[in-house]
Amino acid sequence: MSVYGESIGKLIEEFAKLPGIGGKSAQRLAFYIITQKAERAEALAAAILNAKHSVRYCSVCCTLSDSDICAVCADYKRNPRQIMIVEDPRDMAAYERTNGFNGLYHVLHGAISPMNGIGPNELKIKELLNRLKQTPADEIILATNPNVEGEATAMYVSRLIKPLGIKVTRIAHGVPVGGDLEFVDEMTLSRALEGRREMD
Amino acid sequence: MSVYGESIGKLIEEFAKLPGIGGKSAQRLAFYIITQKAERAEALAAAILNAKHSVRYCSVCCTLSDSDICAVCADYKRNPRQIMIVEDPRDMAAYERTNGFNGLYHVLHGAISPMNGIGPNELKIKELLNRLKQTPADEIILATNPNVEGEATAMYVSRLIKPLGIKVTRIAHGVPVGGDLEFVDEMTLSRALEGRREMD
Repeated sequence: MSVYGESIGKLIEEFAKLPGIGGKSAQRLAFYIITQKAERAEALAAAILNAKHSVRYCSVCCTLSDSDICAVCADYKRNPRQIMIVEDPRDMAAYERTNGFNGLYHVLHGAISPMNGIGPNELKIKELLNRLKQTPADEIILATNPNVEGEATAMYVSRLIKPLGIKVTRIAHGVPVGGDLEFVDEMTLSRALEGRREMD
Repeated sequence: MSVYGESIGKLIEEFAKLPGIGGKSAQRLAFYIITQKAERAEALAAAILNAKHSVRYCSVCCTLSDSDICAVCADYKRNPRQIMIVEDPRDMAAYERTNGFNGLYHVLHGAISPMNGIGPNELKIKELLNRLKQTPADEIILATNPNVEGEATAMYVSRLIKPLGIKVTRIAHGVPVGGDLEFVDEMTLSRALEGRREMD
């Protein structure tokens, strides 16, 4: 038993299990909870239980959602014939924040990574193929991460979908906006050169 | 509403209210909760509610405890006539980890800080005086933090207690063990010199 007694010890232990929370942070969070009003602790506990129990996969795009069909898929003003493939709901949120994409998404929930035992069957690829069978698409935009796993996944999905006669594109690689060329790695610089476009 | 839907948005919001947890971390924690087994989320929620509801002040030393009297105060093998005054239960835990102190503690829950509107009445000083009336002590060791607020608090408590005929001591200031003199500030170096002791 910790010097704090069992229930504080248990709370510190539970916080310390969360990713990126070390022993000291867990202790700080636990003391914060204890010294705040009871409503604050109850609101946090309720939010945890509620999120865990009410969140499911959107039956169209597989993102995490409160409802059977997520808000993006339910938005009839969006173009359902353009589908962006992302690895994670957070990537989808990142593109939503740009306000520059009006199509729908499909969330794979990961990338192919044989080192971590993640093959195509662990991803929502079957769901993507079923979806494309039911509702036709004009373009699939591959927005998996620009790393080894993301590229392999993009390649794999591309090879599955091209035979269906759908246009498959990949988001551009290049130097980040606001970046400084000096600090950009060689691979990115090469890709930026390859992907150069004529100035208007 | 966030792109994630209401219940994930609410969970991210609640996590982001915790100290030291920014927007990105809150998002990471929320997704972690959602992707883990339900038992994990339930264990965390239960630990939060349980800690918040069962933790109270020890009726002797005012530390946070599950029971009316904390484990340290309830330990009859400890010397009840030596009381170390600390600002926070975490400071008490720090001294407990040294395994080098066999007396009891008194937790003030803060330090005098007029800038932050914390006066002696906001601290557990009244409780200390009542405690000393009921159970006599031989020595009060002031282990408040070595900063302006801690020193002021030590001074204040010392002036209250000395008239009761109890010996009042202050933990030593000096260079930290394993520290490098070069990097120690002038104030600490002066205090270390003042507090020098004859070698045996």
